[in-house]
Amino acid sequence: MDQQKFLEILNECATSCDNCYNACLEEENVKMMSNCIRLDRECAEICRYLASAISRNSPFIKEIATLCSQICTACANECRQHEHDHCQKCADICMKCSEACNELL
Amino acid sequence: MDQQKFLEILNECATSCDNCYNACLEEENVKMMSNCIRLDRECAEICRYLASAISRNSPFIKEIATLCSQICTACANECRQHEHDHCQKCADICMKCSEACNELL
Amino acid sequence: MDQQKFLEILNECATSCDNCYNACLEEENVKMMSNCIRLDRECAEICRYLASAISRNSPFIKEIATLCSQICTACANECRQHEHDHCQKCADICMKCSEACNELL
Amino acid sequence: MDQQKFLEILNECATSCDNCYNACLEEENVKMMSNCIRLDRECAEICRYLASAISRNSPFIKEIATLCSQICTACANECRQHEHDHCQKCADICMKCSEACNELL
Repeated sequence: MDQQKFLEILNECATSCDNCYNACLEEENVKMMSNCIRLDRECAEICRYLASAISRNSPFIKEIATLCSQICTACANECRQHEHDHCQKCADICMKCSEACNELL
Repeated sequence: MDQQKFLEILNECATSCDNCYNACLEEENVKMMSNCIRLDRECAEICRYLASAISRNSPFIKEIATLCSQICTACANECRQHEHDHCQKCADICMKCSEACNELL
Repeated sequence: MDQQKFLEILNECATSCDNCYNACLEEENVKMMSNCIRLDRECAEICRYLASAISRNSPFIKEIATLCSQICTACANECRQHEHDHCQKCADICMKCSEACNELL
Repeated sequence: MDQQKFLEILNECATSCDNCYNACLEEENVKMMSNCIRLDRECAEICRYLASAISRNSPFIKEIATLCSQICTACANECRQHEHDHCQKCADICMKCSEACNELL
């Protein structure tokens, strides 16, 4: 995968996680979404952190990508358990992003 | 401008600034680039901050966009003074991003 | 106020907001806390952003401090409405931090 | 080590790295400092990232602390090679912070 494509996936995942975070906080049953809210924030932050690390040629890209892949997988697994469209869509993108990280490694 | 297009510009600007930061640090005459290195970092950070704020529906989007527009303009003005391709390209994208922020406001 | 004292307040406020964010997500009635969760995240992020800007001698310290003061006040006002200890404590620290920002300006 | 003490060390290290970054960019011979500038930014960011992760009770504290310890050590090793007071001071704090991360692990 070329670098530009990978950055697009990371940014798409960060956006999707922040969108899901916002939507979860507006759900009727917020309590049920509390772990999803947490993981959405974790995942959005690590994806932007990795996107910046790649763009600035950080010496720690592989280590950050390893962590990013792990957090994306955890977020995908949580989102997958909820029926909301924003969660299912987020789960798909998080899995794609986790796989893109693994491809880099 | 629709939100997805705006997010693409913000992410493109953040990437461009981090690329320019990295390239400046590898130039023969780093001293001449010190202010560009500073502003590239400032600009990359505020663009990602605003992208996240928009995606999570922050109550402070307009205030952050006002600051982002100002930092993008300062970074564009600095980059414009240097002949390196990475600086000229970064200046173009920073100006486009500053204008996109102003359009939102 | 000297710079070190101001940085301590910013870091204390960021920690307090992240603590409150975590505690809100563990409350029985999470729905009632959704706006507090949002503002805690907003406030933690801007406080760390300003702490870094000050430490790296950013050219935009005043503009970031203006925004930080505003977000701290909004977070304090939200936290003040909730009886939980973590919210009341957070409201106190956010107000102190907002005032420290204003003192800088 | 209790959590509050650990957070103080992380924040002290982030501040010290951003101070060193700023001072390096103002040195007469910036080229010689380019790797120090890079690592100061890397280290400041991961320290604030870990401080936030701890404060919000992230499920990934250990993984982030592992990365933080590694980046602190790399930054300490780079800073140690330069005679400037800001570099020597930063090297000391980065080593202390790396050890505090290891103590957590």
